Amino acid sequence: MQALVLEEKNRLSLRDFPVEETLGPRDVRIKLKTVGICGSDVHYYTHGAIGPFVVREPMILGHEASGVIEEVGSDVTELAVGDRVCMEPGIPEPASRAARLGLYNLDPAVRFWATPPIHGVLRPSVVHPADFTFKLPDNVSFAAGAMVEPLAVGVHGATKAQVKPGDVAIVIGAGPIGLVTVLAALAAGCARVIVSDVDDTKLAIAEKLGAVTAVNVARTPLVEAVKAETAGWGADIVFECSGNARAAAAVFEPLCPGGKVVFIGIPLEPIPYDVAGGQIKEVRVEHVFRYAHVYPRCVGMLASGAIDVSSLITRTFPFSASVEAFEYAATSPAGEVKIQIEMPD
Amino acid sequence: MQALVLEEKNRLSLRDFPVEETLGPRDVRIKLKTVGICGSDVHYYTHGAIGPFVVREPMILGHEASGVIEEVGSDVTELAVGDRVCMEPGIPEPASRAARLGLYNLDPAVRFWATPPIHGVLRPSVVHPADFTFKLPDNVSFAAGAMVEPLAVGVHGATKAQVKPGDVAIVIGAGPIGLVTVLAALAAGCARVIVSDVDDTKLAIAEKLGAVTAVNVARTPLVEAVKAETAGWGADIVFECSGNARAAAAVFEPLCPGGKVVFIGIPLEPIPYDVAGGQIKEVRVEHVFRYAHVYPRCVGMLASGAIDVSSLITRTFPFSASVEAFEYAATSPAGEVKIQIEMPD
Amino acid sequence: MQALVLEEKNRLSLRDFPVEETLGPRDVRIKLKTVGICGSDVHYYTHGAIGPFVVREPMILGHEASGVIEEVGSDVTELAVGDRVCMEPGIPEPASRAARLGLYNLDPAVRFWATPPIHGVLRPSVVHPADFTFKLPDNVSFAAGAMVEPLAVGVHGATKAQVKPGDVAIVIGAGPIGLVTVLAALAAGCARVIVSDVDDTKLAIAEKLGAVTAVNVARTPLVEAVKAETAGWGADIVFECSGNARAAAAVFEPLCPGGKVVFIGIPLEPIPYDVAGGQIKEVRVEHVFRYAHVYPRCVGMLASGAIDVSSLITRTFPFSASVEAFEYAATSPAGEVKIQIEMPD
Amino acid sequence: MQALVLEEKNRLSLRDFPVEETLGPRDVRIKLKTVGICGSDVHYYTHGAIGPFVVREPMILGHEASGVIEEVGSDVTELAVGDRVCMEPGIPEPASRAARLGLYNLDPAVRFWATPPIHGVLRPSVVHPADFTFKLPDNVSFAAGAMVEPLAVGVHGATKAQVKPGDVAIVIGAGPIGLVTVLAALAAGCARVIVSDVDDTKLAIAEKLGAVTAVNVARTPLVEAVKAETAGWGADIVFECSGNARAAAAVFEPLCPGGKVVFIGIPLEPIPYDVAGGQIKEVRVEHVFRYAHVYPRCVGMLASGAIDVSSLITRTFPFSASVEAFEYAATSPAGEVKIQIEMPD
Repeated sequence: MQALVLEEKNRLSLRDFPVEETLGPRDVRIKLKTVGICGSDVHYYTHGAIGPFVVREPMILGHEASGVIEEVGSDVTELAVGDRVCMEPGIPEPASRAARLGLYNLDPAVRFWATPPIHGVLRPSVVHPADFTFKLPDNVSFAAGAMVEPLAVGVHGATKAQVKPGDVAIVIGAGPIGLVTVLAALAAGCARVIVSDVDDTKLAIAEKLGAVTAVNVARTPLVEAVKAETAGWGADIVFECSGNARAAAAVFEPLCPGGKVVFIGIPLEPIPYDVAGGQIKEVRVEHVFRYAHVYPRCVGMLASGAIDVSSLITRTFPFSASVEAFEYAATSPAGEVKIQIEMPD
Repeated sequence: MQALVLEEKNRLSLRDFPVEETLGPRDVRIKLKTVGICGSDVHYYTHGAIGPFVVREPMILGHEASGVIEEVGSDVTELAVGDRVCMEPGIPEPASRAARLGLYNLDPAVRFWATPPIHGVLRPSVVHPADFTFKLPDNVSFAAGAMVEPLAVGVHGATKAQVKPGDVAIVIGAGPIGLVTVLAALAAGCARVIVSDVDDTKLAIAEKLGAVTAVNVARTPLVEAVKAETAGWGADIVFECSGNARAAAAVFEPLCPGGKVVFIGIPLEPIPYDVAGGQIKEVRVEHVFRYAHVYPRCVGMLASGAIDVSSLITRTFPFSASVEAFEYAATSPAGEVKIQIEMPD
Repeated sequence: MQALVLEEKNRLSLRDFPVEETLGPRDVRIKLKTVGICGSDVHYYTHGAIGPFVVREPMILGHEASGVIEEVGSDVTELAVGDRVCMEPGIPEPASRAARLGLYNLDPAVRFWATPPIHGVLRPSVVHPADFTFKLPDNVSFAAGAMVEPLAVGVHGATKAQVKPGDVAIVIGAGPIGLVTVLAALAAGCARVIVSDVDDTKLAIAEKLGAVTAVNVARTPLVEAVKAETAGWGADIVFECSGNARAAAAVFEPLCPGGKVVFIGIPLEPIPYDVAGGQIKEVRVEHVFRYAHVYPRCVGMLASGAIDVSSLITRTFPFSASVEAFEYAATSPAGEVKIQIEMPD
Repeated sequence: MQALVLEEKNRLSLRDFPVEETLGPRDVRIKLKTVGICGSDVHYYTHGAIGPFVVREPMILGHEASGVIEEVGSDVTELAVGDRVCMEPGIPEPASRAARLGLYNLDPAVRFWATPPIHGVLRPSVVHPADFTFKLPDNVSFAAGAMVEPLAVGVHGATKAQVKPGDVAIVIGAGPIGLVTVLAALAAGCARVIVSDVDDTKLAIAEKLGAVTAVNVARTPLVEAVKAETAGWGADIVFECSGNARAAAAVFEPLCPGGKVVFIGIPLEPIPYDVAGGQIKEVRVEHVFRYAHVYPRCVGMLASGAIDVSSLITRTFPFSASVEAFEYAATSPAGEVKIQIEMPD
């Protein structure tokens, strides 16, 4: 089985890598078609670790994926060989206390693709639970199917925010997660999204996604831009997607009374947090960790046209060039949002 | 002051009708530009009453309105002469217990235009509180501004439903309120809306509003259509907009476990309600009465393009032909959704 | 294994009845100590069926139970032999779509004790999943532990109602479920509960449960009593626990604007439902089906004294007299709330 | 009019102080009976300011008050001369945007007693809006009525937390606000409250309030105590009432997945905030600012016995000794919770 293997920090190889997988009664075997490159994949490549997760053994990368079912377990009736699908990369323990409460993403026992020591899916096929495998309608491409994983982060954040129709939201940070959050916020009912960043190239991409006002905070204070857009009242929601401590520390200022904050970006260190500033507006703050229950919703929105991710897929490499794809991605090339790898037929 | 006066049941006249209005410090005087005809206006015309509200004195009709400010009270700073605006037709008592709780639409003391004995606005000008007058951006026409009133009903219903991004909703009834609810449900995050009616002309209009599946329930059982669309799981939300007792009695069947119902249509009599059917799915049911706090949200969504009401405005009459407009509307002409009246300059 | 067997409608016997049960790795075997008699047990005895659930084979009765663990499966670490426990009688399929969403009580595949064809627990021992078995602290008796099952219905209803501290609630119906709902509503934050019934004996029991106002609606209209208690504003919540169609049809009248209804009682037929009456107050209606996630919460409240069920346990029979216990319960004896059966040591 | 006047920082006098007040149509005039001393009153006395609020002119202190109505405005029908009442000390602008949304406590124009330049009520009488004046039933004393103000802070916090019946909550800080929050949390449905402080005297008072576990965090790590109490799962809610930056920075650790934090205490500086720690549990954080809509709820709970504040009133001074009362309060005497002043008849 040919796979893209992170041998150790800074060393990738495309090579034979045997993975033994048994097909359980509620599992399916999927032939991979498209796999997106996530910032976390690149980070494991360039740093060998993310926080407590350290790559100690060779590990296959990739967790944003779509494919075609090639085998189904004995108890699987809702999926069939030949179905086009996308897959949720985290597999919880269904009987854990968190999972029983419906919070399966918070189960500490989740096994998540391409998070050591669990292998990712830059390889020909994978066995996966049917319950976390979702059929793609004909009008959703494999490329779009592989975008469901990052999109799910934005949609989960927008769900947590309990967007009301006509809200004005701010998205701080116009990286890939910021951009899917823009799409999710608009689809979830925002009349307008104000996106802040310091990079004009990224902001230009954001502006094409719909009713978006781009603010380069190197030039314009965010609070001023928000006041202008909301007749001085403030925005209803801030989605913090930058992970930048200084930006994350200023989330209350541009909000209206009774506004909400959703922390999606993950700052590396504690941020200075102005409790009194949150109190005077009685802000509600939500924190999100990956996503739960949103995959079928994302597929539905891609199918109906409520969300269109195509402009975010900026470059595609063949699987045979996947080492090059990672080397390119690691340079953070300007103007790229999502780089994907196409698996061979 | 020339006004469209309902003299008594079945008798309208366009005639001089003096209305004395004083401009208070927090009021504005508005020159009317566009006034939509609502089903309730027509019902007063043809029946002389709606439930306990009986037309006992000549009354000016019309409550869906936009206009231009021509005078502002001494304490009004947020609006200016010349501003293009739309107006919320119900004026509550701000210090009532319901209003203090934020539920001003439930204040029994609300004075609502064209609801006896309060006059409507098919007349040259009206004095109105600034707090219930909302500025229209340049890209929202007077015609669209006058659509905010019916649209607000749908948006309020979608807000109460707490739509999650990717929900599948059913809208029962493709009349004007059903159609604005379709628009609101889609804007609020639904991936798809299934609209049911028995009138193919209305369903054809609904289908053009976006990701809509039209079901003529004279031919196809709604439950079957929903199952097909949701892989057997059921819809997340039912918006009951028909007011039809039989349709309203069957709201639980097409729902998924944990689904929601929003009663927007007003049945004339109690409906047979299957409590056990609601229990087995633990359905949440919301009831809506007009709307509250959604006018600026509707304007924002019209301005940003999140909602486009233009296809619902199917005919326009000049004010001089407003009696004819009502006579025409009273025939329930096929293919018409919203008929509006343009006031003279 | 000696068990209380419902041989067929109207025929009970206490006799040897073999039940074969295998202890799975996540199961425990429990020696039964106390089993309460529920109205549904009595109904199967006197009618042989409840709705679609028909007793076609001899079936052991009883589903309100506590006991002591006598064996644990190989993967069970959180429970040990000798632990005093109570058990949730419905076992869902953990991987069902409803269960994954946290709505395990809505999973159509739930297997529920003493619901044909699943046996109940009026027998020496039972094998049960550890995940639905809950440890009783020393200060919670087996009798109280066996009350958790009916109490859970009230607590689930109060949870769905999202009681705010200081709410005034109405409980319609002072039968066993009404009474546990009174306890749950008070524990959940209600300042006062108004209980309505036509039976003074039941109302007298209700009045002893705390800040309760009893209203015999044969003598006093409920709406008048509520107005007096709330200075005319109306109650915040109605818990409908009677299942009586006429009572269930009148839930909106005594409510305040923005009030809530929780349907707990199960009317046999559709009720006449006043949509317009719910709309004018924008009522939120919740429907509950059994309960989910509340067993450990009930145990915690019994342990801390937040809820005291002891006054509801009005009579106890030894297991050897369990046929007599059912015969007695079937007469609906005045003044009895909960009759329990004590299993032999 | 004899009043307790803060002449300037550190200088109080009990002296004649004329306050001119006109009785509007919706106002009442109240003869003061009991006034509690709040930490903020003492802080103005000892520091002359709280944040941006600086005492520049002599100001009457006191805002926790009860009294008897001695005059009613022409439009007041719900209150009468002789009624025993308590009063909400903040008066918003009812037509402000925040107030119309039901968020009147967030209206920046609120005029709040004993917050410069608004006078407090340590004086014979005050004119106040009827809408913010609440009748006390006979079984609620004037002393308890004057406790509604601090109690309202805890009840508002517990309301925001959306306590579910059976929750386990932590209250950080056993000062007066911590203690009313304990009472509110228990009344709102918590099965148990874990209170943390470093002062054993305060913790001993907390332990007498009900199902309370006191943890002296100078000796026992809070996380350990919570694990012991919750079988390792974590608490459902943290109410941060200390305002202490270090305590406030550690709110996520003792929480369960999906837990909640309510920031009630006001840290003087930004705190270090662990976004990632909140994310891994998807914590919801609420911030509260005073209270809204809870006064009648507090009165109802005092009247029904759901909350008993009597043990928190630890000392009473006559009005003639009110300077001494403040001097004593300023020493933060051990064992005192609430010191009140009784006004002369």
